[in-house]
Amino acid sequence: MQLPTYDDVKAASARLEGHAHRTPVLRSATADTRWGAQFFFKCENFQRMGAFKFRGAFNALARFDAAQRRAGAIAFSSGNHAQAVALSARLLGMPAVIVMPQDAPAAKLAATREYGAEVVLYDRFTEDREAITRQLAAERGMTLIPPYDHPDVIAGQGTAAKELIEEAGALDYLYVCCGGGGLTSGSALAARALAPECKIYGVEPEAGNDGQQSLRAGRIVRIDTPQTIADGAQTQYLGNYTFAIIRRDVDDIVTATDAQLVAGMRFFAERMKMVVEPTGCLAFAAACAASEAQTLPKNARVGVIVSGGNVDLARYAALLATG
Amino acid sequence: MQLPTYDDVKAASARLEGHAHRTPVLRSATADTRWGAQFFFKCENFQRMGAFKFRGAFNALARFDAAQRRAGAIAFSSGNHAQAVALSARLLGMPAVIVMPQDAPAAKLAATREYGAEVVLYDRFTEDREAITRQLAAERGMTLIPPYDHPDVIAGQGTAAKELIEEAGALDYLYVCCGGGGLTSGSALAARALAPECKIYGVEPEAGNDGQQSLRAGRIVRIDTPQTIADGAQTQYLGNYTFAIIRRDVDDIVTATDAQLVAGMRFFAERMKMVVEPTGCLAFAAACAASEAQTLPKNARVGVIVSGGNVDLARYAALLATG
Repeated sequence: MQLPTYDDVKAASARLEGHAHRTPVLRSATADTRWGAQFFFKCENFQRMGAFKFRGAFNALARFDAAQRRAGAIAFSSGNHAQAVALSARLLGMPAVIVMPQDAPAAKLAATREYGAEVVLYDRFTEDREAITRQLAAERGMTLIPPYDHPDVIAGQGTAAKELIEEAGALDYLYVCCGGGGLTSGSALAARALAPECKIYGVEPEAGNDGQQSLRAGRIVRIDTPQTIADGAQTQYLGNYTFAIIRRDVDDIVTATDAQLVAGMRFFAERMKMVVEPTGCLAFAAACAASEAQTLPKNARVGVIVSGGNVDLARYAALLATG
Repeated sequence: MQLPTYDDVKAASARLEGHAHRTPVLRSATADTRWGAQFFFKCENFQRMGAFKFRGAFNALARFDAAQRRAGAIAFSSGNHAQAVALSARLLGMPAVIVMPQDAPAAKLAATREYGAEVVLYDRFTEDREAITRQLAAERGMTLIPPYDHPDVIAGQGTAAKELIEEAGALDYLYVCCGGGGLTSGSALAARALAPECKIYGVEPEAGNDGQQSLRAGRIVRIDTPQTIADGAQTQYLGNYTFAIIRRDVDDIVTATDAQLVAGMRFFAERMKMVVEPTGCLAFAAACAASEAQTLPKNARVGVIVSGGNVDLARYAALLATG
């Protein structure tokens, strides 16, 4: 297994140039004062299709050879990866098939189709999405792009941290949400190269701390699908590539509760005027908790990756109202 | 009456350097496709204290002489201008008094005090805020900074459009929300200098079209306080400075309904992941309406100033949920 390196992140950066947004790094004097640090928020909620996932999917599809491009890409996802593959395929002029559960939210089905992908539905209770996907891939010669455990996906996700550190300068700490570990491992590749002293933390929902358990156990631990509002981090296990990089390069994996995510969501809306999905609040929630526990040195330079902003408006309004 | 010029906007820019955020200019492929234009959104909701008002207030206070600085600034406002003067005074190390109605929202009173200003309350039904303010100003030797009808305030507000055009290049159209006309007139000074062919539209709430009436009548028309969700544009009349500039430099004043503002607020949240206050949706609502009425040429380069994001979270959640 050949792990991707920072050179792959740099190559991904060049491929994404002119296709991905170079998202802003925002500051908040209120956050700095309240939590006694210097925060740099890398706002991937402003990325194309609303999440960092575009970076990895586009990078992977952009590396297809001519035959792969003709046949196109296939993925299974009910979340941001679906839209990321669909949009990347459209931009690169290739077909895409996304295998989605038939009870996926109508808005997500519509958004995926709006990006031009063919959506194949399956029954979550009686059918195996991986088998369906593999069969379709074989029949049509399509290339399967997994949501995180793929060197090109990891390298693409790493470009967000690369841009963050290039703009903010060397960081003391970097907090990154952790589902399957694609963003965390990619960010670690970038941070280890550009800010070797930076401490890197992956952040999981408390209810779904399989990554934390895996680090402790020294092997990939699998859990049941966790109950959390962080729907982008409901993964059950890290990948082989992502775990290997996280184990080598990440200082620790910490967790945040759903209540902390709602507090973060309200802070982002009220003070920074940003819509952030629950998963996108993981990194900031952990940084705030570290500050409150006095484990974050005063005035530390803290990078926070705000991973996405794709949340159903009715659900978002309800979460804001309950805080 | 000496009207401010683009040179004053440039001087304001230099004063704001390092104090105001240079806010991002965001794009939206979805907006461009849906309304057939190239939109450039200048996001003043990400400005310090959450609105463009910081620019004008800081510019005015930064021009105080030593005696004025010692005595400080005074303003009457229940909205963004209150926080803008309070924060500017704190940054410049001078005292500030803000005269606010005693029934102003608790969050706004708290935010103004959090910025270090002394808040003086009055009864909206029995007391005259202008008389109170003038008396306090005389007693304490403080300088009154009005919310819009002041050359330094207008010049400061013009820096947002200056930055927008510098970053986006020449625009074909510029849409700006219009309350008392400070942002509209300042933007017009910048756009006339930097993009002479650009058509400039001020946008008022339909229920409060005093500016539109004033343009038609050729004199400042006063109206009753309008009923609209655009609380930042509930002004009853333009100022002498702002009207003179608008009359000379602005192509027209158009209006948007509250329903259009809610639709815009939902679009900003859902597709651009931004919290925008109702007043901040005026400019975009009018641009969309022009596109739908086919008065906006295909692929026109359209600047939209998103003026602010200060909206009570409970109210915001309710507006998102009702759309």
